[in-house]
Amino acid sequence: MRFANILHEGEPTWAVVDGDELVVPGALALGCRSVSKLAARGVETAVAWGQRVLDDSRSVRVPVGDARLLAPIPRPPKNVMCLGLNYAAHAQESAAAKGDDFQAPEAPVVFTKATSSVVGPHDDITLDPRITEQLDWEVELAVVIGEGGAHIPEQKALDHVFGYTVVNDVSARDRQFRHKQFYLGKSMNGACPMGPWLVTRDAVADPHDLVMECSVNGETKQKGSTGDLIFKIPYIVHVLSTVHPLEPGDVIATGTPDGVGFARKPPEFLAAGDEVVCTVDGIGSIRNRIVGV
Amino acid sequence: MRFANILHEGEPTWAVVDGDELVVPGALALGCRSVSKLAARGVETAVAWGQRVLDDSRSVRVPVGDARLLAPIPRPPKNVMCLGLNYAAHAQESAAAKGDDFQAPEAPVVFTKATSSVVGPHDDITLDPRITEQLDWEVELAVVIGEGGAHIPEQKALDHVFGYTVVNDVSARDRQFRHKQFYLGKSMNGACPMGPWLVTRDAVADPHDLVMECSVNGETKQKGSTGDLIFKIPYIVHVLSTVHPLEPGDVIATGTPDGVGFARKPPEFLAAGDEVVCTVDGIGSIRNRIVGV
Repeated sequence: MRFANILHEGEPTWAVVDGDELVVPGALALGCRSVSKLAARGVETAVAWGQRVLDDSRSVRVPVGDARLLAPIPRPPKNVMCLGLNYAAHAQESAAAKGDDFQAPEAPVVFTKATSSVVGPHDDITLDPRITEQLDWEVELAVVIGEGGAHIPEQKALDHVFGYTVVNDVSARDRQFRHKQFYLGKSMNGACPMGPWLVTRDAVADPHDLVMECSVNGETKQKGSTGDLIFKIPYIVHVLSTVHPLEPGDVIATGTPDGVGFARKPPEFLAAGDEVVCTVDGIGSIRNRIVGV
Repeated sequence: MRFANILHEGEPTWAVVDGDELVVPGALALGCRSVSKLAARGVETAVAWGQRVLDDSRSVRVPVGDARLLAPIPRPPKNVMCLGLNYAAHAQESAAAKGDDFQAPEAPVVFTKATSSVVGPHDDITLDPRITEQLDWEVELAVVIGEGGAHIPEQKALDHVFGYTVVNDVSARDRQFRHKQFYLGKSMNGACPMGPWLVTRDAVADPHDLVMECSVNGETKQKGSTGDLIFKIPYIVHVLSTVHPLEPGDVIATGTPDGVGFARKPPEFLAAGDEVVCTVDGIGSIRNRIVGV
């Protein structure tokens, strides 16, 4: 099942995606208003609620094109956790662009994006020259945690995944490298467009067999497959939950394939007016315009 | 003025520190229950409320020794932001311990600790061998943001500081270095003891003239002064607020002086039973015991 957060009659609420329509609970939200809260109830409960909404004649149907879509998890309980260098070809292009020797990471490289950086799947991304002159793209499959837990074994890890969504791990490369640790270069307002849907795990046959693509102004810049993840989702969930308990609504961006702007020859960066589309097949597509200040 | 968060009759609430006593609002909390919410009202309002509580005969006085102290900001709006290598002597000892050449950072190095890592000023810190065998200490002066803002100029930065508290930036060195980016090695549950008070900015004559110390089992390990900060508080607030707006309750740990465990010869790490005391003169002292699992 696919869930969305939308602004409906001025209030944020969840909806079920049904083809080209979003189905909004008539009896508002059955006790919880957001996809974040749905995730905390677990997949079975959420899907059962979703089915009731689909079946209920009082539910309201809104064409997808008319809806104001919000991020599925607009304010995660902790910063968005992001895997760095989790595709070999991207790790390689990054090392080459920085003049470093290539080494595949021996352990997951994890940095964060501020909770405040999350925006909706069609929101604008501001390009502010006081912050960066090197705004770059990174299409990623993101995992949203349902049931929390600590020391989750790899074999049980997918039980704790509520579902999947798409993020663009928008990066200010000058900031990212100048400040050494990645946090600042990844945390601008608008640096984490997310959505459009949260697709429950039962609706994804194999999260490690999804084609992903990023295009800028219609030109493909990144094309990869989640099959090439160095550290796979069960291992990521295992390691992160070992270091600190995972909570419902935690978001983990699993890394980006090669083709990012700063590693291209010559380097390419986003400019005001550009439109970036990030797609993970079977999950969804987000589309954001770059706007100047 | 000094504020505390305490557990009072089973409920978290704020209190004013008055010598050896904590003064709890009788008419509970005057519309807001936590120090986080007080910070959002700004220093003037908070101090005026605090004064009313001190003057009100219905207020309840609790000896400090009897109170269950919570962190002043138990769940910040985004991960705790931390300055890395912000004291030259510490940057130097770190480089030497890792066999790197010493370079003073040219720009603030900023990483984060998970919101979930924050604990009270006297809470236990768990040492879990599944997570780390190299648990280390870092006494730091932390800044708590009151009025939020973006692109705050250095000259106005202190107006956005609500006050100051003490944190121990507890670090799992093996994790910190194995995972390259610092997040995982800094984000275990209990890795951010905070408190005991939030001291409003008007009560701190010069935040860059505070002696700080960390001791383990009574033996001094770190001794420094905030006067040695490479990047000073106004500049830190300026840079962070340029990259992303700062929000009320945001916590910024400003960095640690030299004397950390992993850089000592031979290296020293915390063991179950150890007691770590982190003190910033004029701000407060936190004391945490290391416990095994």
